[in-house]
Amino acid sequence: MKLKLLYTCLAITGITASALAQETVDQAAVQKIREEGLNHSKVMETAFYLTDVAGPRLAGSPGLKRAQDWAVKTLAGWGMVNSKLEPWGKFGKGWEVQKNYAAITVPYYHAIIAIPKAWTPGTNGPIKGDVILVKADTTTDLDKYKGKLAGKIIIFDTQQTKLAQGTKADLSRYTDEELDKMAAATMAPAGGPRRAFDPNSPQMAARRKALVMRTVLNKFLLDEKVGLILAQGRGTDGTTFTTNGASYADTAKTVAPELETSGEDYLRVLRLVKAGQKVTMEADIKTEFFTNDLQGYNVVAEIPGTDKKLKDQVIMIGGHLDSWHGATGATDNAAGSAVMMEAMRILKTIGYKPKRTIRIALWSSEEQGLFGSRGYVASHFGDPRTMVLKPEQAKLDAYYNLDNGTGKIRGIYLQGDSAAGPIFKAWLAPFKDLGATTVTVSNTGGTDHQSFDAVGLPGFQFIQDGMDYNTRTHHSNQDTYDRLSEDDLKQAATIVASFVYNTSERMDMIPRKALPTPPPAAPGR
Amino acid sequence: MKLKLLYTCLAITGITASALAQETVDQAAVQKIREEGLNHSKVMETAFYLTDVAGPRLAGSPGLKRAQDWAVKTLAGWGMVNSKLEPWGKFGKGWEVQKNYAAITVPYYHAIIAIPKAWTPGTNGPIKGDVILVKADTTTDLDKYKGKLAGKIIIFDTQQTKLAQGTKADLSRYTDEELDKMAAATMAPAGGPRRAFDPNSPQMAARRKALVMRTVLNKFLLDEKVGLILAQGRGTDGTTFTTNGASYADTAKTVAPELETSGEDYLRVLRLVKAGQKVTMEADIKTEFFTNDLQGYNVVAEIPGTDKKLKDQVIMIGGHLDSWHGATGATDNAAGSAVMMEAMRILKTIGYKPKRTIRIALWSSEEQGLFGSRGYVASHFGDPRTMVLKPEQAKLDAYYNLDNGTGKIRGIYLQGDSAAGPIFKAWLAPFKDLGATTVTVSNTGGTDHQSFDAVGLPGFQFIQDGMDYNTRTHHSNQDTYDRLSEDDLKQAATIVASFVYNTSERMDMIPRKALPTPPPAAPGR
Repeated sequence: MKLKLLYTCLAITGITASALAQETVDQAAVQKIREEGLNHSKVMETAFYLTDVAGPRLAGSPGLKRAQDWAVKTLAGWGMVNSKLEPWGKFGKGWEVQKNYAAITVPYYHAIIAIPKAWTPGTNGPIKGDVILVKADTTTDLDKYKGKLAGKIIIFDTQQTKLAQGTKADLSRYTDEELDKMAAATMAPAGGPRRAFDPNSPQMAARRKALVMRTVLNKFLLDEKVGLILAQGRGTDGTTFTTNGASYADTAKTVAPELETSGEDYLRVLRLVKAGQKVTMEADIKTEFFTNDLQGYNVVAEIPGTDKKLKDQVIMIGGHLDSWHGATGATDNAAGSAVMMEAMRILKTIGYKPKRTIRIALWSSEEQGLFGSRGYVASHFGDPRTMVLKPEQAKLDAYYNLDNGTGKIRGIYLQGDSAAGPIFKAWLAPFKDLGATTVTVSNTGGTDHQSFDAVGLPGFQFIQDGMDYNTRTHHSNQDTYDRLSEDDLKQAATIVASFVYNTSERMDMIPRKALPTPPPAAPGR
Repeated sequence: MKLKLLYTCLAITGITASALAQETVDQAAVQKIREEGLNHSKVMETAFYLTDVAGPRLAGSPGLKRAQDWAVKTLAGWGMVNSKLEPWGKFGKGWEVQKNYAAITVPYYHAIIAIPKAWTPGTNGPIKGDVILVKADTTTDLDKYKGKLAGKIIIFDTQQTKLAQGTKADLSRYTDEELDKMAAATMAPAGGPRRAFDPNSPQMAARRKALVMRTVLNKFLLDEKVGLILAQGRGTDGTTFTTNGASYADTAKTVAPELETSGEDYLRVLRLVKAGQKVTMEADIKTEFFTNDLQGYNVVAEIPGTDKKLKDQVIMIGGHLDSWHGATGATDNAAGSAVMMEAMRILKTIGYKPKRTIRIALWSSEEQGLFGSRGYVASHFGDPRTMVLKPEQAKLDAYYNLDNGTGKIRGIYLQGDSAAGPIFKAWLAPFKDLGATTVTVSNTGGTDHQSFDAVGLPGFQFIQDGMDYNTRTHHSNQDTYDRLSEDDLKQAATIVASFVYNTSERMDMIPRKALPTPPPAAPGR
């Protein structure tokens, strides 16, 4: 407790040099971890099974199940205990693509690059139809299309007539300047109160109108029995980013089939149609829904603690295993999953007997709203809405997450937990040669450490080089094994393993921030 | 003649400043051309018809015929005379893709990005088969596959297990330093004698062996009735470069169907198969051959000369209209074709009555060996093998070509014709603000001006910014209208029109290099 106070004071006063002296690092152990992680890595083999072999891992899909089953078996094979699928609650329908073919046939033949939007139905066999440009800003605009769209391929207008060319490299890493700036941040940027909005503002009125229009349009197109809707996928050069076109909920309304089409192919069709050229397309899309098990599951496995007093305390590491469906989710997030599995393997392989229990969790349904980790946190640690906590909350030492692509670790986000700063600074010191140096008090969002943070648990995401995450891979049809950087993944696994080792060996648990204040209950609930 | 001699002396002595003074440029005419070319351009509309509307324009294909017919009609509609298709000789079979579908079905479903290799047959309906890795360095290695490949999908091993990530921007333009270096070149790099090679060297022996092996392999796979061969296409991120898998010759031997597969998809299948995972694929490829007309054609059209003494002299401009089949050949070379058509349109629209006749030619079968322009040169100007020239050779003033993508003009290659340097320098002067300044005595190759150069005619290709020609578009499935840069094409058309104007108005023809020496006749011919 004393030490914890000291760290807090140091963080506040900024005297970190002497704090470093307080935090001892077992260099021999780090060396063992480095040797195994850098020179005997299995991280690429693991990633291969999670991507190429398992395939796309959309939440609830057979692909995710294949990856989960393989992970459970593999972790057990490496000597982890309690390796299992743990249900976290109800998710919804599984879904996968079973046939994906579409082509322009008039004015000439051209097979297009496209991906069915997740949770949309197929075309119910091969179809062929003219492409119709639907221009409808209001519901009454739809009247002129009534009775004319059955079996047709629908396209919508865009401002864009052609795609931009690539003036920047796909790949980027943090510069020293960028890292220095992150390190110099003095407090976590407040999430702050949500922007006050006036429900009667023109913006909100426009939004409501657009939402109503979209709902009306969806129903109209379904009722009109359109053959297929084309949507423009973000991306260029054959790279297409994917989304969902309907809800995974078992109660979700049926929609018309919708195909996310590469920018080049979408705009080609649009330009032709707008120029008055007749365009005919053929398509054969088959998707399947799975409703036999609506439950969501996480993979969990442990290396049990061995210290009589500390073994009930738990260190968790994780990342989400689910992906989008356009590729094999290599950087989002087979990368993080493989690194976390590899960190477990490293610690087991070097024969480490941890004081505290080490537990890995590979989450599911992260892409739909961090559901896997939120469900896990709710059943083990507490409810972020009421801040009613469970006994396990007091025993969870720290949670480390990896979900920002294939880039190596450059440091760690403290998520405002400034007292942890000097500790992590000391733990990163042996990895300066591998480019990991930066501790920032800043927050980062969008992934599963937030579920822990929400109930007052120390949950951290590492800082990772961006690589081509935003330009090429994040939710795209090109998020494949090719985009994995072997050296980066080895580095990350080595550092994670070392962080886990240090957390487990440390006299005290990682200092915590003050408990968050639960949000006010919504009226009438 | 005097003036010509003066230029030659100036080029040799490097005194170009005073030479500039000798070459007058009609600034008012240039201004008219700029106004029409930059502010009333139709180049993008032309490019749209040549790409999106016509489709892929492989030599001999219906797509090329559509583009040729449209160009003939459009040039006539703009007021050109003698707008027609002119046959240049025998080409071979036409070919086009009429269905292109392939997918992995085991271990999970995944539609692949792929293009049938040009002039290969289809699968004769839908097929489904296991993927077999064929490893055969010698013909005897094939024995073990005998009787085992019928209906199978064949893949070959590569050194590569994954693709590299993009560390450079796709797009690039010439830097001032690069242009300065080009301008400073003092003589055309000699094509020089071909590298002497020893037919008994290990390299040549290896090449002969590989060629024999390839021939044996082709026949073996055909005899074994393989379902489909997968070949790895160059490129990443969904971009795939295409080639031909068989000859266009009407006498060419039949081969097995072959599919150029995106790097990501090829390597995914290869990694799975090499790891002992069963992979099954389905495919449905239909290609059609056209043998009703084996002739090749160029588009030609003219603005007739009006000066009694000079109208028999001809200035030609051109670029090839044919493309590869994976996309719509936007930068290779709808761009050059559209610019050259636009240059004609500009000159006609401003009401220019040229002294000399101006003729556009849009070549075909450039991609197979500059056949369209070579055939045209042979029938109009002379035979480069014997250097026996025709009367028209003396009347061809200059030929200007454009075929290096969508990048704007930065200058011109003299192709060793140093006497033309000061003239072009003067003509470029009004376009300094548009980035076109550089005259280099250097050669550039690989396109149709070489056919003219080969019979002693002044044939020039402009220097163009590289843009994403080598990274994304040149022969790829992504060479689409999107990759066209509107401002660059407008600039190019304006400069070409101005060059043509100046050539036509000039007192003398463009000075020529000495006639090339015909190559020694091959023994026994």
